[in-house]
Amino acid sequence: MTEKDVVERLEEIVGKKNVQADKIGLTSYGYDATLLSGVGMATVFPLSTEHVVKLVKLANEAGFTLIPRGAGTNLSGGTIPDGRCVTVNFSRMKKILDIDTENFVAVVEPGLVNFDLQAELEKKGFYYPPDPASYKATTLGGNLAECSGGPRCFKYGVTRDYILGLEVVLPDGKVIQTGGRNFNSEPGYDLTRILVGSEGTLALLTKIFLRILPLPAAKKTMLAIYNQVEDASQTVSDIVAAGIVPTTLEMMDNLLINTAEDATGAGLPRDAGALLIIEIDGHPEDMDEQVETIAGICKKARVREFKMARTAAEVDQLWLARRVVIGSVARRRPSYSLQDITVPRSMFPNMVSGILQIAKERNLEVGILAHAGDGNMHPLVLFDQRIEEEVERVHLAEKDICALALELGGTLSGEHGIGLLKKKYLTLEFSPVAMACFAKIKNSFDPRHLLNPGKIMNL
Amino acid sequence: MTEKDVVERLEEIVGKKNVQADKIGLTSYGYDATLLSGVGMATVFPLSTEHVVKLVKLANEAGFTLIPRGAGTNLSGGTIPDGRCVTVNFSRMKKILDIDTENFVAVVEPGLVNFDLQAELEKKGFYYPPDPASYKATTLGGNLAECSGGPRCFKYGVTRDYILGLEVVLPDGKVIQTGGRNFNSEPGYDLTRILVGSEGTLALLTKIFLRILPLPAAKKTMLAIYNQVEDASQTVSDIVAAGIVPTTLEMMDNLLINTAEDATGAGLPRDAGALLIIEIDGHPEDMDEQVETIAGICKKARVREFKMARTAAEVDQLWLARRVVIGSVARRRPSYSLQDITVPRSMFPNMVSGILQIAKERNLEVGILAHAGDGNMHPLVLFDQRIEEEVERVHLAEKDICALALELGGTLSGEHGIGLLKKKYLTLEFSPVAMACFAKIKNSFDPRHLLNPGKIMNL
Repeated sequence: MTEKDVVERLEEIVGKKNVQADKIGLTSYGYDATLLSGVGMATVFPLSTEHVVKLVKLANEAGFTLIPRGAGTNLSGGTIPDGRCVTVNFSRMKKILDIDTENFVAVVEPGLVNFDLQAELEKKGFYYPPDPASYKATTLGGNLAECSGGPRCFKYGVTRDYILGLEVVLPDGKVIQTGGRNFNSEPGYDLTRILVGSEGTLALLTKIFLRILPLPAAKKTMLAIYNQVEDASQTVSDIVAAGIVPTTLEMMDNLLINTAEDATGAGLPRDAGALLIIEIDGHPEDMDEQVETIAGICKKARVREFKMARTAAEVDQLWLARRVVIGSVARRRPSYSLQDITVPRSMFPNMVSGILQIAKERNLEVGILAHAGDGNMHPLVLFDQRIEEEVERVHLAEKDICALALELGGTLSGEHGIGLLKKKYLTLEFSPVAMACFAKIKNSFDPRHLLNPGKIMNL
Repeated sequence: MTEKDVVERLEEIVGKKNVQADKIGLTSYGYDATLLSGVGMATVFPLSTEHVVKLVKLANEAGFTLIPRGAGTNLSGGTIPDGRCVTVNFSRMKKILDIDTENFVAVVEPGLVNFDLQAELEKKGFYYPPDPASYKATTLGGNLAECSGGPRCFKYGVTRDYILGLEVVLPDGKVIQTGGRNFNSEPGYDLTRILVGSEGTLALLTKIFLRILPLPAAKKTMLAIYNQVEDASQTVSDIVAAGIVPTTLEMMDNLLINTAEDATGAGLPRDAGALLIIEIDGHPEDMDEQVETIAGICKKARVREFKMARTAAEVDQLWLARRVVIGSVARRRPSYSLQDITVPRSMFPNMVSGILQIAKERNLEVGILAHAGDGNMHPLVLFDQRIEEEVERVHLAEKDICALALELGGTLSGEHGIGLLKKKYLTLEFSPVAMACFAKIKNSFDPRHLLNPGKIMNL
């Protein structure tokens, strides 16, 4: 089948306005939040499970591959098209099918934006805990594919912990439902959780059953400012060691404080070595005691200033600064490479000083951003893509950072997957036997390698 | 290889005292907590990962299958030997390898008894949330294989939510480690969670990384006594609908109140229609307000008596009554069939009245025991195994109960797996396409069907 024929058949399935095969369309969806890009044959926007089934059948018949895509906010090249492929853009399958407050369950389509769900839930006194920094753009299907975390995940866990069931289209076009509205184990093998974090390589999502929670009765947001990044990371260790579980423990270093301040004017202290945004939630009666304990720990770790956000506007401004920080580094250098390693949280201070050391050795600017409580760190290595020699040093630094995380008992990815970017490092973490298990799972679901081929590992 | 040769080779691997192949040994480990039994060639007690590797290699070489076993407390026939097989009894691999309070992680061998871990953790101010009723006997490896729950799981989730990583021996004798001490996503496919709940059919566990939590600062245990079981189940719905999440919401009906009272003399009200054991935990300051709210909800649902356990001894006595209740029914009839269905919790009252109806129609005594908050119910159908006609009615009632649970959007198993007992019902819940996915997963891990064959599904 020629490319032209493929496009015609796609148009028959979803209608002309739901297919883009011109240069602008192909280029727009050939990128994600990495520096990678590629070009496929077309981008198609299914509106229903039936559409997805037909697309999968056509792909089998015409011999092309499918690249599922949400908002493309992933940081691992997980949605980059390559070769004879069609991008399946789920952004028009975004209905909220049910908000079931009695059972603490929401049922949604995969293209729904995380924030849009949160807004609807809030009206009913509920929320969905996983909240990636990009939650205003990122889709729930994409969150599931990457097993995303977010600031609140220190207390509440990652996407995996909130997925109760799925409807998916398998690579042969057949549809199954896994799980549903029940909270206990799933009989048989746990199909739901093998699909969570599988980066769109095993099946295409068409429906998601999410666990939701009632909004906490009270919340407090604190800002702790330090002269030294080491003091901030010591605070993180001390809070965890004291058995306190804040909702959020976010860290930004001096470089990122400044780029975020450039972008937002939120009033962040430009001369600080680092800051922590600390949030707690729970019953109103507990708040004061917890704030006091945390303030004491910060003081012990030589905090320069410790303040409470007094108004909703103050809270919003802090979070705005945090949420724009990744984009804001563009003001400093034209390119960045964002890492996503996780270490056991007791190793957090070691990882922070290790990154500073690597930055020095490789002569690179590195901004440190971290969901610090659960040891998930996003070092941002800044550079200029056009300077070849610098790019080489960036790759060396990436490898150093991955190796150090593994040395400290950590892992290559916290919440952004392996995609294309990290697959060269996967064998550093996993033995050939474990890699063979991955391959067996992929091959048992998708023997023809129809779905997102080349992502996670080469087969 | 003859059976005698197999036994000799087993003795070479683990030593004579760690093999039992006499009639008493075979019979002892031919049972579990169901009415099923079988006989294998031998029971072997490995002491190390190396032993397990050698056992798996021998099984491949000599052509026998392996039946992993913890304490045999499962209720689905998951450890019943059959044919040319050797039971691998993990009860002597029971070391606590590490309690890492800084990272909230415990590392244990699979034969460790749940209670023994809890006792050690408590000394350090920690606990492991999943607490099956049988926790004084049941092993952590067994809990993992069945994805067990327990009374506390309403608030804290099931075993799946507390497994961070594993060391396992694959059916070809190779060893892999999955996950570890990190809390975020696992790169690649989530091997840890495909193994949780896989009932010993994919790999043999040799090490488990568990997530542990600091002990809550305060706890309150309440007893609510009702004239009618329907009022108790209404209370459960109302508590959940009010957005309150107790640690525990356990229900027992009149029949079970009486058998438990026979067994313990705990002072339970023999004439009550049902009782609820309600436990909350959290900060000391919150306790009174929560107790008051719960008392109000109970009152609205016509509670006959609502009392707080005032002393540790009173709490212990209540829990003792709850924990012995399954065994206690032996005083009433010689046999029981325990079901393990789960329904979305809003359907809990419907399921309770449905079970009462089924009991009436099938003319059987049924005791209702439930982890009510998360909709996981254990109806106990009482009978006499020697009366053939009654056994037939029991099977019909079992099928009715499963069908009703599925009709209400529920699932066949909450925490005791499918094993042998429920596999005939699995196709009621899963489509042929989903069943084919299960088969593919089994075949990709264990193509020779070496591990626990015939459990979950026939292949």
